[in-house]
Parts: sequence; structure tokens; C-alpha cells
Amino acid sequence: MIYLDNAATTKPDNAALCRAIEFARENFFNPSALYGGGICVQGEIEKARKFLLSRIAGEEFGLIFTSGGTEADNQAVFCGARRGNAVTTAGEHAAVYQSFTELKNRGVKPRFARLNRDGSVDGDDLLSLVDGETGLVSVVHVNNETGAVNDILSLAKRVKEKNPRCLFHSDGVQAFGKIPFRLSKEIDLYSVSAHKIGGLKGTGALFRRKTLALLPLILGGGQEKGLRSGTENVLGILCFAYAAEKKFSSLERDAARLETLKEWIFSALDGQIFTRISPEGGSPYLLTVSARGLRGEILQRLLEARGVIVGTGSACSSKKPFSRVIEACGYEKEVLGGVLRLSFCPETTEEEAHFAAKALNECARELSERVR
Amino acid sequence: MIYLDNAATTKPDNAALCRAIEFARENFFNPSALYGGGICVQGEIEKARKFLLSRIAGEEFGLIFTSGGTEADNQAVFCGARRGNAVTTAGEHAAVYQSFTELKNRGVKPRFARLNRDGSVDGDDLLSLVDGETGLVSVVHVNNETGAVNDILSLAKRVKEKNPRCLFHSDGVQAFGKIPFRLSKEIDLYSVSAHKIGGLKGTGALFRRKTLALLPLILGGGQEKGLRSGTENVLGILCFAYAAEKKFSSLERDAARLETLKEWIFSALDGQIFTRISPEGGSPYLLTVSARGLRGEILQRLLEARGVIVGTGSACSSKKPFSRVIEACGYEKEVLGGVLRLSFCPETTEEEAHFAAKALNECARELSERVR
Repeated sequence: MIYLDNAATTKPDNAALCRAIEFARENFFNPSALYGGGICVQGEIEKARKFLLSRIAGEEFGLIFTSGGTEADNQAVFCGARRGNAVTTAGEHAAVYQSFTELKNRGVKPRFARLNRDGSVDGDDLLSLVDGETGLVSVVHVNNETGAVNDILSLAKRVKEKNPRCLFHSDGVQAFGKIPFRLSKEIDLYSVSAHKIGGLKGTGALFRRKTLALLPLILGGGQEKGLRSGTENVLGILCFAYAAEKKFSSLERDAARLETLKEWIFSALDGQIFTRISPEGGSPYLLTVSARGLRGEILQRLLEARGVIVGTGSACSSKKPFSRVIEACGYEKEVLGGVLRLSFCPETTEEEAHFAAKALNECARELSERVR
Repeated sequence: MIYLDNAATTKPDNAALCRAIEFARENFFNPSALYGGGICVQGEIEKARKFLLSRIAGEEFGLIFTSGGTEADNQAVFCGARRGNAVTTAGEHAAVYQSFTELKNRGVKPRFARLNRDGSVDGDDLLSLVDGETGLVSVVHVNNETGAVNDILSLAKRVKEKNPRCLFHSDGVQAFGKIPFRLSKEIDLYSVSAHKIGGLKGTGALFRRKTLALLPLILGGGQEKGLRSGTENVLGILCFAYAAEKKFSSLERDAARLETLKEWIFSALDGQIFTRISPEGGSPYLLTVSARGLRGEILQRLLEARGVIVGTGSACSSKKPFSRVIEACGYEKEVLGGVLRLSFCPETTEEEAHFAAKALNECARELSERVR
């Protein structure tokens, strides 16, 4: 099997998983317990927190462990946007997009900025939506459907120049551990997920500027300094940090190699059939194309029969006919129906890439013949 | 080590953990993915859901997987109580209690019913707080600090007789997989947790009456029928179901044995020192006592030095000087300061019980001497 749906989820890193299990199996104590066992577990969680923080943030940032990127996004949106209006983009993952849609029921007016053709946000449109009443701006770092990278450092700076009290959040789920990046002082909140970089499903984190008076989304026993109650998911947290250790140790090298691999795949695809949706200079981990006039989900099945697993858009919102995000990029139906997302991991080999490109061409030609 | 803090968390069931890891390691696909791998994972999640449902609920119930008991409680409270007032007890776990406290910021008036001396709720007081404006009543099933069992079936019936439109929720975290019980038609929502019965931290569930129009607490990709978004914690969910399988297969037998063991421990404790707080007929899994006039946290450390691990109250809220719940039972400071909670699991042996009782007596006497 050639697995090219790593943007949906990755195979857990085996060494990280084994190491986390080895720890958590014996050190099963409640991290809040005040005896040695509990203190030891809490200590290991703090080490994990410190490591993850150190990779992208300075001393001015803290980190809240959550049950995943979705919860982190929800906390940022619902606890960040409390009044007035809130601004985001048409290219957000459902975790941010649906939360913004819900904001109007909570007395906050949501505003959605337009996308460029490649899925990145139209920065001028975004800025035009920000005013003195804007409480939160949220911009996805790497678009999970096109791989477009938003320059969130620059956008955050422009937002703060216009309204210094406005919070800036970014969903970094497809960026963290994949593209070189550090949080700047203009970014207040940043969401990440473990299972996109070899960790387990069910764990994520919200980076937060320490001086920010953030409210909890989930209340109870007061864990995570009162910002996220509930007994900590020790196994998930440790596996996240251990997997991240590996990813960050070769981040630049992996990114450079996958950039070449991605471009090679695109160049090998039949230009008569495939339209490129991902921008050049986008995330090296993601290549989205459309087999014009063909149906992506049928192509996906033909490819699966050859052992090649690809996505058809965001797995998390696969119940809609077309992708909301690709539609917002301005593509017509013919393109929208044929979208395929190939997403990589550092373990993806050149041989797999060659086989996949060949399979894509053959399956698309086969389907074209059938359709005619 | 003799571990008697199983109400805080349990050691993961090794067979369940190995089985879940074996599945999740290879079947790592996103459950929302539409290819074979994703469908297979979704199928295993559905099997887990069906099994857990079958143990305590009829066809009229569904189940939402959450990141734990705390999140399940939060969803029940915040999505169940939308207007008017909401009624709970002074004996709730912080996950319910703190959520109720927050309700007043959201336009819902919280009301707290008095406790009996043993930690169970004063049913008449609870009923007196319910009126035509009550949107939700929440009563903990087994009090996590005293082990008192509330007769939630009868309380729910009385609540519905007074206000049929009022929802009834119960926090069943210390009951599920431990005491024989089935949900009745008067119960709308019921929260459970995996790590209290040999599952992993970071997984729980909210049982819900299917006809109930429940809102999600966490929004996004629409997982769990739109009631709980975020990629499913596959490993945690499967480990939960596998651990529950074992617990339910010997639930009555384990409960009967631990009841005898619990009563034996109490009878072996020095009556001159220890006051019983747990009621007779309470959960067999939990015995709370107080070493009058002594400090529980010091006793806890002395016991730890002898290899006996006990709790001093709810691990989740261990930052307060006294337990809010035991205080609400009406005890004076002398008793409040000396609270120790011994909590068991089916693996707790008679030998461990004997050793622990002896150690408790000796440590308490030693501390008394020192204090004098």
C-alpha cells in the first residue's frame, strides 16, 4: 500500500508510540495525585510541554494540551471572540469555520475574507474586515486542502497595526512539525494536532501568549492551570512530544526532499487531464490536483484498487458534494468534482511517488475512456 | 506497591491495551476517510459504541465518544441547560460543579441541593428546587469522594413527574463498569470515563436519549453525527470498549467480593482514630474515612513510604485545603483535615487489604504520637 493521505492522518511513529506506552503503562498514576507516582507523571507532561514550546515559541508562550486540533480551534474561537465581530477566511478547516458560524448565535458577528485562487487568503480583503470592534482574527497557517501557506506573521502584524487589542489566532495543524516557522509576538493563539505528525488521534495543543487572559472551554478539576480541565491524556501527550522530537530533528531536510518529490509528481502527471490546484511554494507535504470532468471519489477507488491511497479533499468534511474551500478558490464544477489530494510524510519514498504518478495517469485515462 | 487510588485512575488493562494498540497501529486511517482503511476503522468504532451501549442502555439510547468524563459532563450541562434554571447537588465532581457555576454567566441560574451526611443528595431538597423553569437536573450517580450511591432512577422519575420537559443527567464516572445498573427512560444523559475502569486517560462517553435534540460542545468536521467534532481517538475508544468487556463480564462477582473486602478493611481500622465517611451500602469500590485531628496528606505520605498509595479526596481538585464535598456533608474541620480515600479495583487482593489496614493503623498511631 502506498499511503498518500497523510494530511488526513499519519501512521503513528512506532518508536514514539512504544516509548510512550512503556512510560504510561507503568506510570499510570493520575497526574494530579500528590504522591510520587503522580508527580512523576506530571513531570513527564511538563517535559513534553517544554519541548513542544521550545520548537516554535519563545518564553512568552505557554501551551494547553487539548483533545486535538479541533478542540484547540474551538477554544481559540469561542474564548477569543467574546463580543463585536470576528474575522476569518473562507479557507479554514471546519473546526474554525463551523465555530465562526456558531458565533452569530453567541452575539458575535462572523466575517469571512475571500480566498485567492490557490487557497491563500486575500490579505487586503481580510484587513478591510478588521475594525475597532474586531475581537479575534483567525487565519489558517497551511490550507489543509490546497497546501497554500498564509504569511500569518505579516498578516498578524497588519491586523495589530489596525487594532492592537484584537487577538490573532492561527490553525497550524498542517504546518507544525512540517514547515520551518516560529511564533512572533503578534500571534496570540496557535492550534496544533498530534496525529498529523506521527502522534495519536485525540491529542492536540493550543499555544497561547502567557499574558493573554484566556477562558477555558472545558471546566472541572482545574488541570492545565484551569485552562483545560479533565485528567490529562498522558499517553497521547507523551507520544505527541516524542513524535515531534523526530519530526523537528529533520524538518528542513524532509521539507526540501518532499518539495522535490511533490514537484516531480506534478511534472509526471498528464497535463491533458490534471489541473494543479496547489500553489508553487506551498506546503511540500501536499499536492492537490483536479482530474477535470472526472469524479474524484471514483478515481480514489480505482487508485485504491491499485494500492494507492489518496484523499478527495478534507476527510473531516467529506459528506458535502464539493469542497467548500476549493469552491471558495473560484473553481468551476468541472474542476471541483475531480479534486484529489496527495499528501506526504517524511517516509514517503521516490519509488512510491513514481508508482503513484503512473497509477494516477492510468486510472484517469481509464476513467476518461469509460465516461466517453 | 499497593495501589488503592483507583477512583483517581486505574492501571490500564494490559490485554485491552495490547489489543487496541495492535488494531490501531496498523489501522491508523482517519475514520472519516472513504476508502477501505477508513471504513474498517469506523466499523471498529461502531462495534465499540454498540458494545458500550448494550451494557447499560436500550435501543433508545445513543452514545457520543468524548475526550473524557469531564468533557461529557460539560456537554451535558452547557448543552442541556440553555435557559431558566438548572439544578444539581453539592456533591458533584468539579466537572459538573464548575460547569454549573459558569452557567450563571450564560443566563442560566444554578441551584445546588443539600447533601446527606453520607454524601448522597437530599432528594426532597433537590425536588423542591425543580420548577417549571428548570431545564436540567444533574445528579452524580456514585459520589466520587464518599462512594454514596444516589438512586438516580427514582430521582429522575420524581423530577419528570414535576417537570416532564426538564432533562435529567447523571455523572456515572464512578458507577459505570462497577455497579449493576441500567438507564431508565427518565434519564436523558449519562457521562462515563474510560480510565476509571482500565481504559486510557483521554476517552469518555456521553450516553444520550436518541430523541433528545442535543447541541455539540465542540464543532468542526461533523464527527459523531455532528455532536462531537474532531478526529476520533481510535486507540482510546477501542481500549475503552475492550477494558469494559472485561469489567462487565465479572461486574457482579467483583462488586460482591470488593464489598466484603471494603467492610473487612473498615472493621480492621482502629475505631479510636478513624471515622467512617462512606455509607454502608455505598459503592464497593470506595471507602472514605477520616483520621480525626490528623492531616490526611501527611498520612498519605507516611503510607506511601510503606508502599501503600491512597487518595486524600478527589485528585482532580486537590488544590483546595478541604474537600468541598465532604464539607457539604456537614463534617467539622477536625474530620475534614484527616480524610483518606481508599479505592479498589477487581485486582485488589485480600493480602493487599490486610497490609493496607495494618499500615493505616500504624501510620495513624505514629502520627498521633508525633503530634502530641
